[in-house]
Amino acid sequence: MTIEHPSFGTLSDDRIIIFDTTLRDGEQSPGFSMNLNEKLRMAEALAELGVDVMEAGFPIASPGDFESVRAIAESVGRQDGAPVICGLARTGRDDIMRAAEAVRPARRARIHVFVSTSALHMKYKLRMEPEQVLELTTSSVELARNQVDDVEWSAEDGSRTDPDFLCRCVEAAIRAGATTINIPDTVGYALPEDMARIFTMLRERVPGADRVVLSTHNHNDLGLAVANTIAAIRAGVRQVECTINGIGERAGNAALEEAVMALRTRHDAIPYETGIRTPNILRTSKLLATVTGFDVQPNKAIVGRNAFAHESGIHQDGVLKNAATYEIMTPESVGWTKTNLVMGKHSGRAAFRDKLRALGYGEIGDNALNDAFRRFKDVADRKKVVYDEDIVALVDDEVVRGHDRIRFVSLEVRSGSKAPPHAALELEVDGELRAAEADGDGPVDATFRAIHAIFPHEANLVLFSVGAVTEGTDAQARTTVRLEEAGKMVDGQGSDTCTITASARAYVHALNKLLVKRVRTEPAALSA
Amino acid sequence: MTIEHPSFGTLSDDRIIIFDTTLRDGEQSPGFSMNLNEKLRMAEALAELGVDVMEAGFPIASPGDFESVRAIAESVGRQDGAPVICGLARTGRDDIMRAAEAVRPARRARIHVFVSTSALHMKYKLRMEPEQVLELTTSSVELARNQVDDVEWSAEDGSRTDPDFLCRCVEAAIRAGATTINIPDTVGYALPEDMARIFTMLRERVPGADRVVLSTHNHNDLGLAVANTIAAIRAGVRQVECTINGIGERAGNAALEEAVMALRTRHDAIPYETGIRTPNILRTSKLLATVTGFDVQPNKAIVGRNAFAHESGIHQDGVLKNAATYEIMTPESVGWTKTNLVMGKHSGRAAFRDKLRALGYGEIGDNALNDAFRRFKDVADRKKVVYDEDIVALVDDEVVRGHDRIRFVSLEVRSGSKAPPHAALELEVDGELRAAEADGDGPVDATFRAIHAIFPHEANLVLFSVGAVTEGTDAQARTTVRLEEAGKMVDGQGSDTCTITASARAYVHALNKLLVKRVRTEPAALSA
Repeated sequence: MTIEHPSFGTLSDDRIIIFDTTLRDGEQSPGFSMNLNEKLRMAEALAELGVDVMEAGFPIASPGDFESVRAIAESVGRQDGAPVICGLARTGRDDIMRAAEAVRPARRARIHVFVSTSALHMKYKLRMEPEQVLELTTSSVELARNQVDDVEWSAEDGSRTDPDFLCRCVEAAIRAGATTINIPDTVGYALPEDMARIFTMLRERVPGADRVVLSTHNHNDLGLAVANTIAAIRAGVRQVECTINGIGERAGNAALEEAVMALRTRHDAIPYETGIRTPNILRTSKLLATVTGFDVQPNKAIVGRNAFAHESGIHQDGVLKNAATYEIMTPESVGWTKTNLVMGKHSGRAAFRDKLRALGYGEIGDNALNDAFRRFKDVADRKKVVYDEDIVALVDDEVVRGHDRIRFVSLEVRSGSKAPPHAALELEVDGELRAAEADGDGPVDATFRAIHAIFPHEANLVLFSVGAVTEGTDAQARTTVRLEEAGKMVDGQGSDTCTITASARAYVHALNKLLVKRVRTEPAALSA
Repeated sequence: MTIEHPSFGTLSDDRIIIFDTTLRDGEQSPGFSMNLNEKLRMAEALAELGVDVMEAGFPIASPGDFESVRAIAESVGRQDGAPVICGLARTGRDDIMRAAEAVRPARRARIHVFVSTSALHMKYKLRMEPEQVLELTTSSVELARNQVDDVEWSAEDGSRTDPDFLCRCVEAAIRAGATTINIPDTVGYALPEDMARIFTMLRERVPGADRVVLSTHNHNDLGLAVANTIAAIRAGVRQVECTINGIGERAGNAALEEAVMALRTRHDAIPYETGIRTPNILRTSKLLATVTGFDVQPNKAIVGRNAFAHESGIHQDGVLKNAATYEIMTPESVGWTKTNLVMGKHSGRAAFRDKLRALGYGEIGDNALNDAFRRFKDVADRKKVVYDEDIVALVDDEVVRGHDRIRFVSLEVRSGSKAPPHAALELEVDGELRAAEADGDGPVDATFRAIHAIFPHEANLVLFSVGAVTEGTDAQARTTVRLEEAGKMVDGQGSDTCTITASARAYVHALNKLLVKRVRTEPAALSA
């Protein structure tokens, strides 16, 4: 039966709605938190990628979360052809009203209400009786429908829920006005047959299940998230919840790029379409890596460095004779290009702006352009060639920076295996230049001690990592620093040809984020 | 029907044979190559993990590959309860005789013969007619069976092979004496139903298919490797080919840890047993990361840093109330421990040896112990606490080193955002002390230029990355340097509290490996 959907109109039978939750479930995993500017940049990239629904956050969790969802609804959400902007809510009135307020500016807005339905979760987490959960389902969906037309309801831990009770809950949610029904495998426990059985059952037993969009949300704890997603599609699901690079709670969610390319590559067996512009996949994956500081592993499907690399002689030989011998999709179809060598120290501002457009930064402001160009010239002075990846790194660096209280000015270090490591550092704090020197266990440690001397604070360093942005001995280093204070975690990034300077920049970046976070309330994020 | 197997005797119906190919398919992916000592260390760890068959390499590919397989067969392969040691071979006489020679010292030895069977591969890669492939199947398996009792035959690109032709090939292989029949999804194209259909067909149509072990080998290009593996098991497969951390060609193979834990966690639905000692999983994963220099991503299932981390408030709350609300297996069951804080500067050699035993290094030699203890004291002098991971890093560092031509002696650098980066370096080359100074784009670049000045060479630096071994400001940095020369790639690793010193150590390590590789013939690795 054809589905009439408040946000999508008449849905054709072979169309799969891609619901991206990189900014909610993804952002919720340790070390993947993003600030407002980073979320806005990711939201723009996700819109350009062509996701249908973007879960932008969990507005009640903190004022910062609320602001992010609201800002995304007001900017990305108001553009032509923008995705539906979605906010998560528990069943309480405050949750739902806060979510409604956050998403309302968007052209198309969704509230996503969830409640646990498994016996285990109802007993130990909610401490509620099933009938109470059923009542909350009805009341929360009705309240959400009074705010927006497009309401999704999720049965948390749905894959481990008693079938009869699940049918009763879904029926109540549909009757109350839910237009999308999502059954998540919250703990990553299901096998493909389990997800298929659940959706087949819902379609057979629940009145009205054929008039709403059924949705699936799979976690990868046993490596089965994509397989479960495909099994659900074949059992009648029309919405797929997923994240870029498969990030998310614990082992993460189904990776958007894998689910989409499985549908595309195996269209013979799974004849469904998505609205994803697949050549944007790699760029979106890399932006997420830049923003969070975590690269995917080399053998990550679709977007890993080795995903299209052929090491063994016979494989290379086969690919040269006929690419189809070892490649089931072309690297270009997901955004890999053969060469990315582009600019040098003699490139001018116009060429730089052209390059930025080609890289998808058409809308960059003049201030950000000027800052990025200045840093580009710094890099070009020190490197023979500047790669696309270098430019993406430094522009993202500028774009995601807000108005920081602390600014990096200069650093001198000496270190090695003989001398005691020593750092001399200058920072600008609230507009005032300050300097300090310090020794340490290593050059990075000495630098961080100098930061402490200039700006005393109680945060703990919980992660420090460095990855080269591009290949070669003159590559810029990209450094990530994760700080923790009173249960709050922030990540900072910095790029520089000098690893130690990049580390100082990253630490200062993280410290600025922590200063912003201090004014937010305690986070209390949840997940469906 | 019960299967009588030459290596395993009477196989019970619910026993799944774990065939690990970390050292063959895994080692074949760009950047994951290992030297002899590294392969031996990994082979020991895999034996301790309890794999049933270990594919140790592809002996014809190069003298180095031959040596590795032979050395593993002679050491690990001769221990009590050792896994079957397997060598890969194409259908040619030289391949098979070389493989036989390499594996023969093992208590239980297997030759794994493979040939392409898909129309695409036969036409473009082999340039052969199907009847020729059929004849080669028979002749190669017969030759292998003349050498060893345990012979595996693989149909490369089997998942895309014409069903009738696949049945004829499998029948020929069984008739010629193959005791294991493997159907790989070489290009990562299959859906779970495809793998199920293939094995159901073979069991229905091929005479003798119920007397041999059927095997599956799945690649993860669409994120479906584990799901395909499980589907194959349910369709009658009794051997699963997989790798630690899911490494391997392109997007890699089915991850051993995911397949094994899926069977264990979902024993209710997939009632099969393996011989894997699951508490060894994390240690084996970390050793591979140390040896190859590639960490898994934080959200990697089972072994990633976040796999058992709960960020969101309600998740944490749920786990505290009842772990089963969000955890489907215990972290301890795969080797995660609650605390790993262990040693400090006052710990003595006996405590250090005890700790090494507890960490699984019972068999470490006295020289390696002394070197490791000296480096441990260096680290302990500079760090407040030394974690298990630090010790694993530095011991692995010592164990995997051979007799190197170039040795790191000392380094002094100065760098920052003001001064031109400068390095003063001392190396020992063939026993002679040499020194050089150099400027560079950054402190690492200056250091590498100094290495060039002392030991001129033509290798290109293609990757440079740094990751913190443990958390905290005084963490040791672990650095990876990848060099490429005339199509050969090597990776070097180094650890030190000073990032730059770690980089110099890693570069020297890589250079030593390259000097060894120079004497080997050209690699020509293949994959099933």
